[in-house]
Amino acid sequence: MAEVTLDDILSAAERLSNIASVTPVMTSATMDGITKAGVVLKCENFQRTGSFKFRGAYNTLAKMSMEKGAAGVLTYSSGNHAQALALAGRLLDVPVTVIMPSDAPRVKAEATLDYGAEIIEYSRDEITREELAAAVAKERSLPIIPPYDHPDIVAGQGTVGLELISAFPGLDDLIVCCGGGGLLSGCAIAVKSKSPNTRVIGVEPEAADDATRSFYSGELVTIRDPVTIADGARTPSLGSVTFPLVLRHVDEMVTVSEQEIVDAMRFLWERMKIVVEPTGALATAAILSGKVEVAGKQVGAVISGGNVDLKRALSLLYSTGKAS
Amino acid sequence: MAEVTLDDILSAAERLSNIASVTPVMTSATMDGITKAGVVLKCENFQRTGSFKFRGAYNTLAKMSMEKGAAGVLTYSSGNHAQALALAGRLLDVPVTVIMPSDAPRVKAEATLDYGAEIIEYSRDEITREELAAAVAKERSLPIIPPYDHPDIVAGQGTVGLELISAFPGLDDLIVCCGGGGLLSGCAIAVKSKSPNTRVIGVEPEAADDATRSFYSGELVTIRDPVTIADGARTPSLGSVTFPLVLRHVDEMVTVSEQEIVDAMRFLWERMKIVVEPTGALATAAILSGKVEVAGKQVGAVISGGNVDLKRALSLLYSTGKAS
Repeated sequence: MAEVTLDDILSAAERLSNIASVTPVMTSATMDGITKAGVVLKCENFQRTGSFKFRGAYNTLAKMSMEKGAAGVLTYSSGNHAQALALAGRLLDVPVTVIMPSDAPRVKAEATLDYGAEIIEYSRDEITREELAAAVAKERSLPIIPPYDHPDIVAGQGTVGLELISAFPGLDDLIVCCGGGGLLSGCAIAVKSKSPNTRVIGVEPEAADDATRSFYSGELVTIRDPVTIADGARTPSLGSVTFPLVLRHVDEMVTVSEQEIVDAMRFLWERMKIVVEPTGALATAAILSGKVEVAGKQVGAVISGGNVDLKRALSLLYSTGKAS
Repeated sequence: MAEVTLDDILSAAERLSNIASVTPVMTSATMDGITKAGVVLKCENFQRTGSFKFRGAYNTLAKMSMEKGAAGVLTYSSGNHAQALALAGRLLDVPVTVIMPSDAPRVKAEATLDYGAEIIEYSRDEITREELAAAVAKERSLPIIPPYDHPDIVAGQGTVGLELISAFPGLDDLIVCCGGGGLLSGCAIAVKSKSPNTRVIGVEPEAADDATRSFYSGELVTIRDPVTIADGARTPSLGSVTFPLVLRHVDEMVTVSEQEIVDAMRFLWERMKIVVEPTGALATAAILSGKVEVAGKQVGAVISGGNVDLKRALSLLYSTGKAS
């Protein structure tokens, strides 16, 4: 089993120094008033490429380039990991190829191309991305850098937690969204190492609660194509690297409804003036909905990203949501 | 003529210490790449009540309370100043009455009420707000705190420039939106005092260029009810306090089109992940449109606020603007 330690996260932090942004932390007197808590939001929507994914992608590619050179790398992603790896490749001068479904949002494909990556499109009906990735990797002799299930990805994402707990050493709770578990497990390792009494809590959409069920049953649960607006949490299951790490280092998992995600998004946009994607609002949703009881506590929550089509976001805010 | 000096702004900064937020500065590698400049954005959209207006309102009310007590104050505003003064009144325990048109946006009236102010509605067809304010002020013996044309308001808004130039002492240009001229003149006084070589440039919408015309002609120009999405710049003219200050301390005025405002808003929302109201995007619009030539320079720009109805913002971004 792949172990990831605080040392791995500290090494990642060194690699990311002056490359990734040390993202700001934001607070809101209004949120503190509502929750009767002190809430600090770690804003990875302000990270390069608009999400925390840049940390893991750059860490993994930089380590690989250093250790054995990299003539090129391959990944599969229609989302934030694709843009993140594309930029990492450009900065490290390593060609990046991304396998992306032909129906991926145009803006995401364009951002990935803008960063200089090559895209190979496929039809979801004809082949899975893992099958195609394996074939392309073999044909072109390219190593695959997966979106989350890799120790160096976990270590990179863990720098989010490291920065937060270094700035706020006395946090009672750290609340983190969970898709494939890379961000959650990385943050849990960093935070538990530096502050063993801080509780680390993962958050999923109700409709995509595979990690929550896996966590409480101890058996890996898979949910394919769950219907949730939080696209970063549509991953079918935790991975072989991340599942054991989540089991060992995370204290609790909770779920939130689609309405709670939309309400949290609206709060973040309207009151805090920050653009947050649905997955990025999961931790805030857990706090505002009361799914995590925070009154009287000092609490950190991770805003994972802000890559959302504005038109789609606003239609979410004004159809699912109650009138503002 | 009312003078406002660096000392007044330093006194305002003391009054605002630990009350107003020292707002963060944001940068964007993408913006720097597009403009070939180093651009720092001073983010007053993250200020309490969502705009810089809190600084001037609190400074004025705190000084008034200290010097002669304040049993209550009156203002007229349908926008950010109303919310700002309402919160200042709550914090200083001074009752605030706001004269607001009956057709003001519901969200703005609600926010003002939430902060504990009393609202007196009037019909724009029947009476001007200045006439009604004078009558109510006399009847209730309440002093009026106007939205911009007051030395203590100017001094409070000047703390925006003071914070920015203290953090970035070598700025070549400072670019600031202009409505009634309180923010622009206050920032100009602070910045010119600390850094005489920094050029201070005001920005207006083309359709509401009263201050630009006043600046270049030396005669106060009035434009009533200009048609622009930048509602904070719909003020008919500079005031008797702000006009001379703008003439003396500002170096240049430029205008931007409605399309340029929308394009800047879209950039700020999509790429920088911050919610900015149209007026708040004026300075960025001047940079991105090339109306101010910034290549090779270190440039500061003020984002004045983020109070925008999200639904309305969507319709702006996707009707006036080009497809994204």
